[in-house]
Amino acid sequence: MKLTILGCYAATPRTFTNPTSQVLDIKNRLFLIDCGEGTQVQLRKNKIRFSKINHIFISHLHGDHFFGLVGLVSTFTLLNRTTDLHIYGPKGIKEIIKLQLRLSNSWTNYGLFFHELESLESEIVFEDDKVLVKTIPLKHRVYTNGFLFQEKIGNRKLNLDAVQNYEIESCYYQIIKNGKDITLEDGRIIENDKLTFDPVPAKNYAFCSDTVYNEAMLPIIENIDVLYHESTFLQSEENLAKKTLHSTAKEAATIAFKANAKQLILGHYSTRYESIELFKEEAETIFSEVLLADDGKSFEF
Amino acid sequence: MKLTILGCYAATPRTFTNPTSQVLDIKNRLFLIDCGEGTQVQLRKNKIRFSKINHIFISHLHGDHFFGLVGLVSTFTLLNRTTDLHIYGPKGIKEIIKLQLRLSNSWTNYGLFFHELESLESEIVFEDDKVLVKTIPLKHRVYTNGFLFQEKIGNRKLNLDAVQNYEIESCYYQIIKNGKDITLEDGRIIENDKLTFDPVPAKNYAFCSDTVYNEAMLPIIENIDVLYHESTFLQSEENLAKKTLHSTAKEAATIAFKANAKQLILGHYSTRYESIELFKEEAETIFSEVLLADDGKSFEF
Repeated sequence: MKLTILGCYAATPRTFTNPTSQVLDIKNRLFLIDCGEGTQVQLRKNKIRFSKINHIFISHLHGDHFFGLVGLVSTFTLLNRTTDLHIYGPKGIKEIIKLQLRLSNSWTNYGLFFHELESLESEIVFEDDKVLVKTIPLKHRVYTNGFLFQEKIGNRKLNLDAVQNYEIESCYYQIIKNGKDITLEDGRIIENDKLTFDPVPAKNYAFCSDTVYNEAMLPIIENIDVLYHESTFLQSEENLAKKTLHSTAKEAATIAFKANAKQLILGHYSTRYESIELFKEEAETIFSEVLLADDGKSFEF
Repeated sequence: MKLTILGCYAATPRTFTNPTSQVLDIKNRLFLIDCGEGTQVQLRKNKIRFSKINHIFISHLHGDHFFGLVGLVSTFTLLNRTTDLHIYGPKGIKEIIKLQLRLSNSWTNYGLFFHELESLESEIVFEDDKVLVKTIPLKHRVYTNGFLFQEKIGNRKLNLDAVQNYEIESCYYQIIKNGKDITLEDGRIIENDKLTFDPVPAKNYAFCSDTVYNEAMLPIIENIDVLYHESTFLQSEENLAKKTLHSTAKEAATIAFKANAKQLILGHYSTRYESIELFKEEAETIFSEVLLADDGKSFEF
């Protein structure tokens, strides 16, 4: 998985900071998560091919998470896109986009499919042979979901030396990769683990923004490899965080700790603070593996 | 008048080019004309005070002319704006903005007034003691207006030496500036032009984008001081201009020439061309006073 942060600052776009948007690349599938104003320019700056984005996930309908969507949808048309585009987001998102297309006498050359969300329980919203995506119900001022991206466990890897030693024909390779033992012509049974290596471990990534401190998400993100959790404020603004249903860096770290996460990425920073390093320092008092998102930064895991 | 170009390129926002938006400063009143995606960042980059913008004019509902509006309206709230904001634009613009505010459970702290336009004739949309704004009906793929900004002729300027020589009391100064003659106590009548200087000549500015070549606008912009006219294409793409209801640089220059404009500013360039100087070269074959808009550039007139 490769995560590219296009924007990770709260509230309004500014000269050097962008509102929320990120691209998750799982085995060459690109998932766009949130789409604040200016996302299409950030995609260009980060040299991400527009044509590879087929699925867009919108957490909630606050402007800093979706005002760039209609522009991106329109630009896809100008770029002569023909591939279907799927948008997953809160109920209402279809009306917003369709109204603007209609009033501008525009249309899309490609199939535009909306998957509107309104469940308060976690649900599977996307699945193919490599990836599963579930919602993570969050608690914010409007209906909000985080998203859990789970890579599926791949096939076992063929041990080529071993299968050649046993003179096994190549037509059996797929069965072996699927985990089956093999009976040789002389009757010997060769156990699968003598013919294969373990598959590359499947990774998972959870995007949780925006939300107040909310332990209800813990069962969904238990043992997560990488957790992106919003930290709009520092603990010094704890009351403001509670009032606006946002989290502090310490609270994000507490969620990471309690979820037994391997790594925590902080983001959705208020621009009131002098340095984002302050968020890391605060979170590290609770949880050691803290990374800081920043616009244009990539993480591989 | 001071015109600041925030963006003047056609179609999508790109890394180094912005869609249409400009700020016209007339005697310290700021008028925002069009509001493509990223306009609020361009306002910051050009150090234009958000709080001074009270009137926004939207030419038409194509994304590159208004997708930045909802973000700006929201940011005004975050900046604790309290002053009324007036938005002038095609019918439908209110529904677009209100729907997004409603679905994001947001509101504005300030009075938000929509002046929806649907007339096919030129009409006065704004007037105060200093400025008059009229629509310029344009011909494009959707309902579109340009805007004519007319500075009103100011008061005559007091000739302080003259009024002191005649020992005229200061309570008469305003009457004199209004153009009246004065009768002295000894009965002599002093004609106004001996007591005043001519006022600063009133200027006018016309914004015409997007439009196909359209002589119907000529009576409205006759003798205009400064005409901003779109030139999406060069004459080599004349057919594409006709098809998409845009203009070429030569056509923009022809309108400027026939309107007896003093200056022409070109903009709304397609990014397909190597250099925007090509637009100037082509326009200058028809009309001599050609200026090129560019993002971040200002013009004083």
